[in-house]
Amino acid sequence: MASVVKKHLNNKSEARHVKAINPQGTLIIIGGKEDKHGEKKILKEIARRAGKGKIIIITSASDLPHEVWPEYKELFKGLGIAVKQLHHLHINQPEEVRRLQLNKIFAGAKVVFFTGGDQLKLSSKLGGTLLMDYVLDVYKAGGTLAGTSAGASVMGEIMLVGGGDSDSHKVGNWMMAPGMRFMESIIIDQHFAQRGRIGRLLGAIALNPGVLGIGIDEGTAVIVENDHFTIIGENAVYILDGRGVTYSNISEASADQTMSIHDVRLHVLAENEVFDLKRRKSISKS
Amino acid sequence: MASVVKKHLNNKSEARHVKAINPQGTLIIIGGKEDKHGEKKILKEIARRAGKGKIIIITSASDLPHEVWPEYKELFKGLGIAVKQLHHLHINQPEEVRRLQLNKIFAGAKVVFFTGGDQLKLSSKLGGTLLMDYVLDVYKAGGTLAGTSAGASVMGEIMLVGGGDSDSHKVGNWMMAPGMRFMESIIIDQHFAQRGRIGRLLGAIALNPGVLGIGIDEGTAVIVENDHFTIIGENAVYILDGRGVTYSNISEASADQTMSIHDVRLHVLAENEVFDLKRRKSISKS
Repeated sequence: MASVVKKHLNNKSEARHVKAINPQGTLIIIGGKEDKHGEKKILKEIARRAGKGKIIIITSASDLPHEVWPEYKELFKGLGIAVKQLHHLHINQPEEVRRLQLNKIFAGAKVVFFTGGDQLKLSSKLGGTLLMDYVLDVYKAGGTLAGTSAGASVMGEIMLVGGGDSDSHKVGNWMMAPGMRFMESIIIDQHFAQRGRIGRLLGAIALNPGVLGIGIDEGTAVIVENDHFTIIGENAVYILDGRGVTYSNISEASADQTMSIHDVRLHVLAENEVFDLKRRKSISKS
Repeated sequence: MASVVKKHLNNKSEARHVKAINPQGTLIIIGGKEDKHGEKKILKEIARRAGKGKIIIITSASDLPHEVWPEYKELFKGLGIAVKQLHHLHINQPEEVRRLQLNKIFAGAKVVFFTGGDQLKLSSKLGGTLLMDYVLDVYKAGGTLAGTSAGASVMGEIMLVGGGDSDSHKVGNWMMAPGMRFMESIIIDQHFAQRGRIGRLLGAIALNPGVLGIGIDEGTAVIVENDHFTIIGENAVYILDGRGVTYSNISEASADQTMSIHDVRLHVLAENEVFDLKRRKSISKS
């Protein structure tokens, strides 16, 4: 398997393999409802990575940017970490990107943060736009891309949209869309235990057991650097590894049948634990 | 590992090993909310096994026996399968058992059915009473013990009571009580996907990875015969096998920490699939 952490490829035919193994930046992928009142550990982690640079907050997943943006503005300013500059971006349609002075907006940007909402809004409004090239340039230059809830889901190669919460998966319950692909061969799900989403992530794994499923609980995040990630936050992260799968009925059974899948490897990781994406192995705390 | 399906041992010092390997009866373990309006597949399965014998319905888990009993009476009579006799038992305290004419009540009994409610009510009211000896004699003689929801949970050696629904498991979240032990080395959970219970079942597995976790969805049941079980019903059954577990923090971390566990084997089974309890292996549909 090629490295899992890989940057979006552009038309310049970049040295894909090398870049994949040596990504420059960091991803902070949050399962939604990050702590906004207590210790604010996850938001502080993001702010710290901005250093003396700018944080760009993209609210395009949300229908309520005028509520979401001021909330994060206050939060980032109140963390006790000097954030030099915050910039709000809300794109309603891809054409709006053309009118933006992206060079100016992204000058000095060290962090791009995608808020929650609807992942399809995020991917359909921003996917393929010049804005995303600028976002990837931040990452390429060693910066951080962070996202919560819908903003987390879009980071994978494929993202889950809809699909029955709190129920076992039905064979015909398709719920995929192409993601932003900050990571490859990965599907991210969020609000994981809280919304009983193991069924839909297992459904995704069944479709291609080579894809690694990462289910992130609320109030919890994974920090991806190079070929590993570390957990922060109060709840858990679930890893579904389908490489040992011996059977599933996903391609044979009728659409209304319940999905079955045998021999999935499951890891549940808590804060400070590290997962090796290359070896697909959790590394115990010493 | 000794056979998983084993009868409760009484003081007569039965040949434990032989009985374990050759159980005579059947268990029908239902994840709650069995279909009562449509095809009624699970209830028919139970009724069929009564043959020309009696079905004893025990409502002691419930606070509303006068609602639960008439409902099941009508259901069993309306299945289109001739059920010869239904008998209702509701025990509020163990001492009430002494006043029952158990010989008469259990004469010709082929099925004992435990309704839902609170599993602790069931185990605390009936555990260790002479009534349970009669129940086990039905099983010993080739009969069927069936239970739904709380009536399913009590069948294992250990049962889960309380514990956070729809959240990841905390290390200190103990939620065990001794079950009726119709099966050994097994923990059963019910309403499984619907109430997001994988966290609490993983918590139980972490405490002793040698115990097999079986999470049964609503509207779904496992039929245990000899050393295997078969799934019926519309949803799924989750098997958590901890024998390959490489790490968990359950004995080391503080009580309020989120539990972690690595390398659990997970199977999701759908209708008609068969699981071999001895080899702990799901058998694919041919």
